Amino acid sequence: MSENKSVINFTRGVPADESFPIKDMIEASQIALEKYGTTILQYGKSFGFLPLREWFAEQHGISVDNVLTANSTLQIIDFLCHQLLQPGDVAFTETPTYDRTITLLKRHKAEIVGIPLEADGPNMEALEQALIKQVPKFFYVIPDFQNPTGLTYSLEKRQKLVNLAEQYGFWLIEDAPYRPLRFRGKEQPSLFKLNPTRTLNLFSFAKVIGPGLRVSVLHGQAELLAKIAKFAEDTYICPAMFNMGAAYQFCVSDKLPGQIDKLKALYAPRLQACLDAITQLLPDVEMTRPQGGFFLSLTFPEGITTAAVLERAKTYNLNLAPGQAFFPNGGGERFLRLPYCAMPPEQIHEGISRLAAVVKEELGIRNL
Amino acid sequence: MSENKSVINFTRGVPADESFPIKDMIEASQIALEKYGTTILQYGKSFGFLPLREWFAEQHGISVDNVLTANSTLQIIDFLCHQLLQPGDVAFTETPTYDRTITLLKRHKAEIVGIPLEADGPNMEALEQALIKQVPKFFYVIPDFQNPTGLTYSLEKRQKLVNLAEQYGFWLIEDAPYRPLRFRGKEQPSLFKLNPTRTLNLFSFAKVIGPGLRVSVLHGQAELLAKIAKFAEDTYICPAMFNMGAAYQFCVSDKLPGQIDKLKALYAPRLQACLDAITQLLPDVEMTRPQGGFFLSLTFPEGITTAAVLERAKTYNLNLAPGQAFFPNGGGERFLRLPYCAMPPEQIHEGISRLAAVVKEELGIRNL
Repeated sequence: MSENKSVINFTRGVPADESFPIKDMIEASQIALEKYGTTILQYGKSFGFLPLREWFAEQHGISVDNVLTANSTLQIIDFLCHQLLQPGDVAFTETPTYDRTITLLKRHKAEIVGIPLEADGPNMEALEQALIKQVPKFFYVIPDFQNPTGLTYSLEKRQKLVNLAEQYGFWLIEDAPYRPLRFRGKEQPSLFKLNPTRTLNLFSFAKVIGPGLRVSVLHGQAELLAKIAKFAEDTYICPAMFNMGAAYQFCVSDKLPGQIDKLKALYAPRLQACLDAITQLLPDVEMTRPQGGFFLSLTFPEGITTAAVLERAKTYNLNLAPGQAFFPNGGGERFLRLPYCAMPPEQIHEGISRLAAVVKEELGIRNL
Repeated sequence: MSENKSVINFTRGVPADESFPIKDMIEASQIALEKYGTTILQYGKSFGFLPLREWFAEQHGISVDNVLTANSTLQIIDFLCHQLLQPGDVAFTETPTYDRTITLLKRHKAEIVGIPLEADGPNMEALEQALIKQVPKFFYVIPDFQNPTGLTYSLEKRQKLVNLAEQYGFWLIEDAPYRPLRFRGKEQPSLFKLNPTRTLNLFSFAKVIGPGLRVSVLHGQAELLAKIAKFAEDTYICPAMFNMGAAYQFCVSDKLPGQIDKLKALYAPRLQACLDAITQLLPDVEMTRPQGGFFLSLTFPEGITTAAVLERAKTYNLNLAPGQAFFPNGGGERFLRLPYCAMPPEQIHEGISRLAAVVKEELGIRNL
């Protein structure tokens, strides 16, 4: 190991700095201020900037009352928890799931039940068994290019899931920030499309324009959204209108399709580099094979823990994230999330090489 | 009364649409995106955009650790409630005070004790009596051009207040969005200046650039701010960096002093028009005489209620806000807040004329 090795971070799921459409955002900000300056610099409704909501409603063939915008998806999840959960109430998540949602659910003193995630979606037997025991207030899911695994639900499981939500009477919170970033394979319908009355769909501009905007969108039942809007008003009067104006102008200038194409062209080779390097250098490690999004995940062989790998990796200037934070009910000791978007393919290859060296050393210790 | 009269709203404390520095914000957005695009479109720290925090720290001669930025002042107050209050804990406010803070305190199940506000600040005897009974977790105050009265604390009461906070050990939450908008008279030191270890100072760009930015700033003790930052991260990862970049660029381009001068030139005649019209047309009504800010307030003579005036005013196309929402422990039946900034002087005069006609009719009924 050389002391001079540059640091490689496989830690947070952040977009690549070079992905941001800075020039288009300058133009969008200027036009938004010229056309809507007195609206986007003024107080607005807690539902958010109306033209942006109307644009989304039109895109999805729904009413504007079914669209609420807010400062980030996590804040919407917090609002939903305030609205839907009392302390001790049950919420389902996938196992593993997005760590920040687990943190929020714990803050709301929810009893979290994790449903094991398979390559094509939740384990349906486990889900049905859990439902027989107790019906949750909601099931928080990420059906497309899931965080932290990169996995995507099959059509069959999507259909089954919305049927169960209907049958047992619980909400599906469908977090879908990665959905537009499909590099290959066939897109499946969103849960919201399959059942708009039981699904609360979350979209974000974080992964398609930039997270610094903090503009996210909730699609769902109008009556529930009106309650969320009242709670949001009491929390911050209205979300940030200025950035919503810029995001809206970016969308109506028809910049989004081109930006998404650009992102796919940038990120697809990075996913491929990651898959290739793991196949080549880490043959004993179990991996997911995503078709898009920001992440793939590994499971180390028995006897090797992520904690040990993470610690040893530091000596290689390789930063990894602990796996257990993604597991609501324990487990994940051998789990590793690999976010690949923020690095060029060469750096990904180098990072996986270092990881392979670390794993080899750990295997050596195990076999002593 | 004519059916054709245009509607006049003395309801919400919003800036005038013509006050927004749209051209300067176009320039600020462009430069911010050019210089900091990969930072302000990316995830950031939950403390907010570092250069903006550094700018504030320098302005106030404090450390950057004492500066946290967030999406709106109300959201910071919510964070402070989460950090400082348990259900049943006592919080003091002025009586009357900002209605949205009362709503938030109730959400957090605080026991609110209102301290009567006088022309020069809180009634100190009442405050000391209340402190002998129970020490609050904090006292939420608006010492400059208070919402809803427009009143400003004297130096003597400021000094007394920070001494009491020190003696009894409670936080002062100093909400100061109107402070830069002094039209006449002498500025007094902020509570934060007098006692930075006991004061949590809130500044906002809402009233000096535009509320649609939702950029606010908390100055306070570093240890507490670190806890708030953790809670903020778990709530929304980071605040809207994009807006903070634009606000920062506006500030470092030295546009703020000129903008504040422009606002004073716009709003001072509106306050004067309001004061003159009330003196002339509503001689029996008690009024506050602010030296700046967004509001003044009236107290109707015994026997006339704001509720009755509000109802009758509708027939004059005059919209007023209920007074009782500003009183945490009841009262305010004869209280009226008058926000004057969003209307030109002629319209203010017309609005007060209609109000005088309404009051005259109410007095007539009373004297039947």
